[in-house]
Amino acid sequence: MQIVKDEGPITGEQIAEKLNLTRATLRPDLAILTMAGFLDARPRVGYFYAGKSANQLLGEHVRKLMVKDYKSLPIVVKEETSAYDAICTMFLEDVGTLFVVKENKQLAGVVSRKDLLKTAMGKQDLQTIPVSIVMTRMPNIVTCSPDDSLLDAAAKLMRYQVDALPVVRPMEDGDGVEVIGRITKTTITKAFVELGQHTDV
Amino acid sequence: MQIVKDEGPITGEQIAEKLNLTRATLRPDLAILTMAGFLDARPRVGYFYAGKSANQLLGEHVRKLMVKDYKSLPIVVKEETSAYDAICTMFLEDVGTLFVVKENKQLAGVVSRKDLLKTAMGKQDLQTIPVSIVMTRMPNIVTCSPDDSLLDAAAKLMRYQVDALPVVRPMEDGDGVEVIGRITKTTITKAFVELGQHTDV
Repeated sequence: MQIVKDEGPITGEQIAEKLNLTRATLRPDLAILTMAGFLDARPRVGYFYAGKSANQLLGEHVRKLMVKDYKSLPIVVKEETSAYDAICTMFLEDVGTLFVVKENKQLAGVVSRKDLLKTAMGKQDLQTIPVSIVMTRMPNIVTCSPDDSLLDAAAKLMRYQVDALPVVRPMEDGDGVEVIGRITKTTITKAFVELGQHTDV
Repeated sequence: MQIVKDEGPITGEQIAEKLNLTRATLRPDLAILTMAGFLDARPRVGYFYAGKSANQLLGEHVRKLMVKDYKSLPIVVKEETSAYDAICTMFLEDVGTLFVVKENKQLAGVVSRKDLLKTAMGKQDLQTIPVSIVMTRMPNIVTCSPDDSLLDAAAKLMRYQVDALPVVRPMEDGDGVEVIGRITKTTITKAFVELGQHTDV
C-alpha cells in the first residue's frame, strides 16, 4: 500500500522487485487490495492508490449538500408596503431580510435590516415611504436555485457581502423569477454545526 | 471487509465459515488487511473494522477548527456613545454588531442592528439616547473564548439566536472580561466555504 501510495502508478512486477518477491507470490495480495477498493489497477499502467484523503472526503461531502434541502421559507412583502410595516414584519418573523414581490409573485427586490436602518436614520416618514424605494431591485439581486450546491450559495453570500439569497425559479409565464425559499448565513451556520456533529461512532 | 464491517468483532473461523473457506486459506488475506490498517484484531475477540467512516473524519476535522484562528477584530464603542453614532460606526465598519466597553476596556454590553432598528422606530432622539440604554448587558451576553472550538461557537450562535459572539478573556485585574475578537455568522459561512474547497487532488 505504501509503495503504491508513494510511487503509483507502478506495475505488479516493479512492486515485486522492491519487496524481493516474485510477481506470482504478490498477485493474490494485490488482487485483494484491488477488490477491496484500496488500490485501482489499469492495464498497461499499473496499480495506483484509490483511497481518498480525509480532506478530499470532507470537500466532497460539503459539495454534495444542496440548496433545496436547506432552504427556509421566504418572508415576502409587497412593493407598496411602507418601510414601517416592513420593519414590523422583520421583527414579527424574526428575519434579517425580506423579499419584495409583485402581485403575480414575481421577485421585485430585496430589503435588508441594513437598508431599513439607513432609511430610519433619514428625515423621511417611515409610514409613508414604500419599501420599493429602499430595496435593492432586479437585476441587481444575487439569487440561487434549488439545484445549486449549498457551497455555491455560501460562496455567493461571502463574495457579494449579503446576509441572504432568495432561492428562485423561472416564472411560469417566462418573465422574471419567483421566490421559493431563502438561504442565509444562519442556514450556513446550521449546516456547519451539523457537519461537526457527524460522528457515526 | 464487508463481513467484518457488518458483523465485527468476528473471529477468523466465523469469517471462513461464512465464505465456505478454510481458516488457513483466509489467514494470509486477513493478515494483509490487518497490516494495512483496515482491520484490527484482538486476541479472543476477533477482527473488527478499523477504518473511520467519511462522516467520522468530517466531524473530527470540523471539531479541530478553533475560535482563535478564525476570529476577526472586534468593533467597540463606549457606553456613552449615542445610538446615532453607534449606527454610523456600524455603517462605517460594515458590521452588524458592536461591543460596548467601559473605560478600562471591560465588556459592558452588545448592541446589534436589530436593537438599533428597534430604537430608531421609537419616539426617542437617536442623538441623545446613549447606546448603554439599548444594549444587551453583562451577564446576559453569550461569549466565547479563543480556545473554544469554532463548532461550539457556531452552536451558541444557533442556540441563542444571535448574529455575533464577543471573543473574551478574563480582565487582568480579575473583574469581568475583555473583548479580543468577534465570531459572527459571516465567520462561520467563510469557514464553511473553506471546508468545501478542500480537494487535495
